[in-house]
Amino acid sequence: MQDVKDITIIGAGPTGLFGAFYAGMRGASCRLIDNLDQVGGQLTALYPEKYIFDVAGFPKILSKDLVKEMAQQALQWKAPVHLGQKVVGLRREEQDGKPLFVLVTDQEEFPSRTVIIAAGIGAFTPRKLPLKDVDQWYGKGLHDRVLNPQEFAGQRVLIVGGGDSAFDWAVNLHGIAKSILMIHRRDGFRAHHATVAQVQAFCAAGQMELRTFWELKAIAGGARIERVTIVNNKTKEEETIAMDRVIPQLGFLSSLGAIAEWGLELEKGDIKVASTMETNIPGIYAAGDVAVFPGKLKLIATGVSDACVAVNHAVHFIHPEAKVAPGHSSNMAIFGQTED
Amino acid sequence: MQDVKDITIIGAGPTGLFGAFYAGMRGASCRLIDNLDQVGGQLTALYPEKYIFDVAGFPKILSKDLVKEMAQQALQWKAPVHLGQKVVGLRREEQDGKPLFVLVTDQEEFPSRTVIIAAGIGAFTPRKLPLKDVDQWYGKGLHDRVLNPQEFAGQRVLIVGGGDSAFDWAVNLHGIAKSILMIHRRDGFRAHHATVAQVQAFCAAGQMELRTFWELKAIAGGARIERVTIVNNKTKEEETIAMDRVIPQLGFLSSLGAIAEWGLELEKGDIKVASTMETNIPGIYAAGDVAVFPGKLKLIATGVSDACVAVNHAVHFIHPEAKVAPGHSSNMAIFGQTED
Repeated sequence: MQDVKDITIIGAGPTGLFGAFYAGMRGASCRLIDNLDQVGGQLTALYPEKYIFDVAGFPKILSKDLVKEMAQQALQWKAPVHLGQKVVGLRREEQDGKPLFVLVTDQEEFPSRTVIIAAGIGAFTPRKLPLKDVDQWYGKGLHDRVLNPQEFAGQRVLIVGGGDSAFDWAVNLHGIAKSILMIHRRDGFRAHHATVAQVQAFCAAGQMELRTFWELKAIAGGARIERVTIVNNKTKEEETIAMDRVIPQLGFLSSLGAIAEWGLELEKGDIKVASTMETNIPGIYAAGDVAVFPGKLKLIATGVSDACVAVNHAVHFIHPEAKVAPGHSSNMAIFGQTED
Repeated sequence: MQDVKDITIIGAGPTGLFGAFYAGMRGASCRLIDNLDQVGGQLTALYPEKYIFDVAGFPKILSKDLVKEMAQQALQWKAPVHLGQKVVGLRREEQDGKPLFVLVTDQEEFPSRTVIIAAGIGAFTPRKLPLKDVDQWYGKGLHDRVLNPQEFAGQRVLIVGGGDSAFDWAVNLHGIAKSILMIHRRDGFRAHHATVAQVQAFCAAGQMELRTFWELKAIAGGARIERVTIVNNKTKEEETIAMDRVIPQLGFLSSLGAIAEWGLELEKGDIKVASTMETNIPGIYAAGDVAVFPGKLKLIATGVSDACVAVNHAVHFIHPEAKVAPGHSSNMAIFGQTED
């Protein structure tokens, strides 16, 4: 059994990392647990080489570079990070008349005075193309994730999807791929206006092509992908086009796993919280993409904000005599109690 | 009269700047208005040379550098910035059956479909030392603001106060000043635990001194400050100490100015909002330090998050047919309407 921490954060993505940083600012002891083998969550696992444009103060930064900076910031207080551990259960105990949460992973037990769930979209797997025998093309030109954009240099690329990820990759691979064709099954996009406008500008300049109401019907080739057949879902027109790479960006199948069974109030798979990030279980907080409340937006910028708010309320939960806001409670005597 | 914008943001500090960035991401037209002559708000006006440690992704960054990056990010969509203009009034009109807000400054009129108030602590003036004839020492060693830390190189410095600003300057001037004495009238601090702990570590190492229950009683000298007299408010003991510089960090007298008269619901001088950043006046939002809601924290990290949420709801207010969240509403036809 590990030692008791003030705050245990599930998830070491941007939200969890900033939570660990802010816990240190508030003088609270903290640990991070993540299912993945590296910190950074989706940024590390799914798109380390993608540029991000919407983190305050960074007009443009590679995902992996942002994670590196955030990890340095987060871990300056030496909070332990337990990677490659899957949370499988939660025991609720008591210590000195106060609640104690024991997080159980597939390897260890972690007692904690409070818990912040910053699990992002939970354990996630990319949604696959609905094509028969699609699995045979992985390793032959089919990519659920783009880990190394340079692999696409000089290649003819098909991107399937109409969300932020699809548009982001169209922009990120522009100037690298030989050609980019993007298809989407309808003409509405689930992506930020500015990114869509950028792709449209590239299209207008003849530098890529975006077709709406087109779907992927078949992938063909031999040792590698050689061509794709796409179909217009309105006119039923079909077209076969020479292609080297296919990148489906169809979203993720996500799952909270064991967390869904703790009695937390959920809404469409997300954890309901107040604007204080409190869940319906006192002492358990949620922050970032996994949390939902009126006005909630799923961005890195909002996740890191949620994390600070959650940490503040966790500190207040541990020390009800401390006011919630920082700098209104930092009487050292009070905080001395929280040091392990 | 200027042209009609989707969103007019009052305040070009970090929150306002990120609001302008995110307005562009959502395809909304936008302008910024600020009373100050430069963007960046307090960061530029009060502490451009101070290191900030609590912005996500920056383990350490100078205020002025953060502002530079944020301005580049914000202004990539060419939103006009109207500096040195004081907001003096608001007219509520109608255009095509929809509300139109006309912001009146001391120089111009700015019509807008929505307004986001990101005014920080409003127009602010540093709180002065409660000493007779204190004004005579400005320019002779008394500093309400530290614009150039190098000015303090080799100097004996007295910092008065127990808030974040006082502790931040103690840390920032450590290694620059010849000596630092910090005094505070009580033993509770309104500062982050980590910064207080850092100062205490410097004190333990004999590198600076922190005295609680001491107050500044008098400043003396000739052409410049030469010494100060401090008094212990418990024992009444007095001590006169040779000193070159005095930095009072006693907070600010702030004022919302004309904004306080618009019928917005206020709470202790802040504007009450929902977690969607909506005020009690439909179409007017508040974000950042000026906004208050349950769980609200006053940090740059939370202000920029507020700004995104406010922008989303402003876009929804203009186009009720658009869903609130981005990427669920970016049908280009709808957004085409908002372009000026």
